[in-house]
Amino acid sequence: MHSAGELHRTSPVGSRHRIPAGEEGKEGGGGKTARREEGCNVENACYSLGVCAERTAIQKAISEGHTRFRAMAIASDMGTDFIVPCGACRQVMREFGKDWDVYLTKPDGTYIVKTLDELLPLSFGPEDLKKV
Amino acid sequence: MHSAGELHRTSPVGSRHRIPAGEEGKEGGGGKTARREEGCNVENACYSLGVCAERTAIQKAISEGHTRFRAMAIASDMGTDFIVPCGACRQVMREFGKDWDVYLTKPDGTYIVKTLDELLPLSFGPEDLKKV
Amino acid sequence: MHSAGELHRTSPVGSRHRIPAGEEGKEGGGGKTARREEGCNVENACYSLGVCAERTAIQKAISEGHTRFRAMAIASDMGTDFIVPCGACRQVMREFGKDWDVYLTKPDGTYIVKTLDELLPLSFGPEDLKKV
Amino acid sequence: MHSAGELHRTSPVGSRHRIPAGEEGKEGGGGKTARREEGCNVENACYSLGVCAERTAIQKAISEGHTRFRAMAIASDMGTDFIVPCGACRQVMREFGKDWDVYLTKPDGTYIVKTLDELLPLSFGPEDLKKV
Repeated sequence: MHSAGELHRTSPVGSRHRIPAGEEGKEGGGGKTARREEGCNVENACYSLGVCAERTAIQKAISEGHTRFRAMAIASDMGTDFIVPCGACRQVMREFGKDWDVYLTKPDGTYIVKTLDELLPLSFGPEDLKKV
Repeated sequence: MHSAGELHRTSPVGSRHRIPAGEEGKEGGGGKTARREEGCNVENACYSLGVCAERTAIQKAISEGHTRFRAMAIASDMGTDFIVPCGACRQVMREFGKDWDVYLTKPDGTYIVKTLDELLPLSFGPEDLKKV
Repeated sequence: MHSAGELHRTSPVGSRHRIPAGEEGKEGGGGKTARREEGCNVENACYSLGVCAERTAIQKAISEGHTRFRAMAIASDMGTDFIVPCGACRQVMREFGKDWDVYLTKPDGTYIVKTLDELLPLSFGPEDLKKV
Repeated sequence: MHSAGELHRTSPVGSRHRIPAGEEGKEGGGGKTARREEGCNVENACYSLGVCAERTAIQKAISEGHTRFRAMAIASDMGTDFIVPCGACRQVMREFGKDWDVYLTKPDGTYIVKTLDELLPLSFGPEDLKKV
């Protein structure tokens, strides 16, 4: 796992508050190497069209053809609490399984690790759409 | 609490799959009566601009001046599992506290109850913005 | 058409800047009376989960069973320009046709009127999904 | 400008219908070279959490530090009309000015060019937030 410090990035378009993110994609196949994508908040004058760093990182990875994730680390330079993803980001992450790890960090570099299933219990995902 | 059956409503604009919602708003003051709002999925040709029933119900309540919620019940006429809110809806609900109840129902009328804190643990809300 | 002043409403949950909205729904049938819905911005600690007043108004109307719109008026108590809807709201409005009117107002009560087609030219809507 | 064909990419997670996108970022400075980012639709079991290719491309570019854009081309392998961006994508693009070009293509490789201002007239952007 990368240290959270590596993953930090503030938004180039004027960040209000939070959550640079990083993520590792692992190709399904045997010998492929792991890859890391970074995201940042991308904001908009129409606030509801902004997007959090976690979703940016996921979308980048998907658009590069990576659809399997092993871990995401979330970092911020504000606050004294462990930073957590919003519910929308948890659902976007959930699309790719619920057993991968999310590293919640503090600016001092300490962190805790939770599975996505712990962060979004009783969730639904793409496999549930197939049922209906 | 109302029975889940009461809260059911399918989208008038062609529902694909899920989650009519209902919600009770309780004014802060002493003698005011409780109120119930209903929502439904509102879909869009651009899928990402659709919105789930839970958010519709919350937004209706807010636009009518209700900002305190006691419970929400979610119902669907599809599937055999208890229906659950997506992560985005959980975050929108979280804006109004984490100690209120969410009734997850099945088409057969059975249900389980979870607090919002159980559905979105380790969450952040408007009180956390004030810290930074 | 109602005067824009009637439609003004600030968000009960702490508005940052903008756009109370109002909307008239007209049932398809012959003798049915017109109806007006009001919306307001509904914000969230996770900015991207907030929603503009225009979408709130549309979603309310849909959830009440109204799917045909004749006009929307948008008002704000800030700024000296005619207030305009964001692109996301224009697309949500587009779902219900492109020939209805949008009243763009100023705090002084003056306004201009544009059709949705003028605000979102070269648009796509639900009828285009059927083609593919 | 790249040919639209180059920019085509279908979503790795099961595209329903539309709009791979590509985009060129140009650094402000003198001698820097242009760069091209590609996006794709990134979908979600909760439809409203999906995101269009245009926004994915913008978010990738921003997260890589590029904030000035010269043109975007949008391509799809479906339909016989010129593909157009949704209103939400137009607003996200608008964040970075209104005088850049959007290439709307057909599967047969023909295209038309519109400025963002033509696609989202009477728009507001980050400079308008500063006024209030």
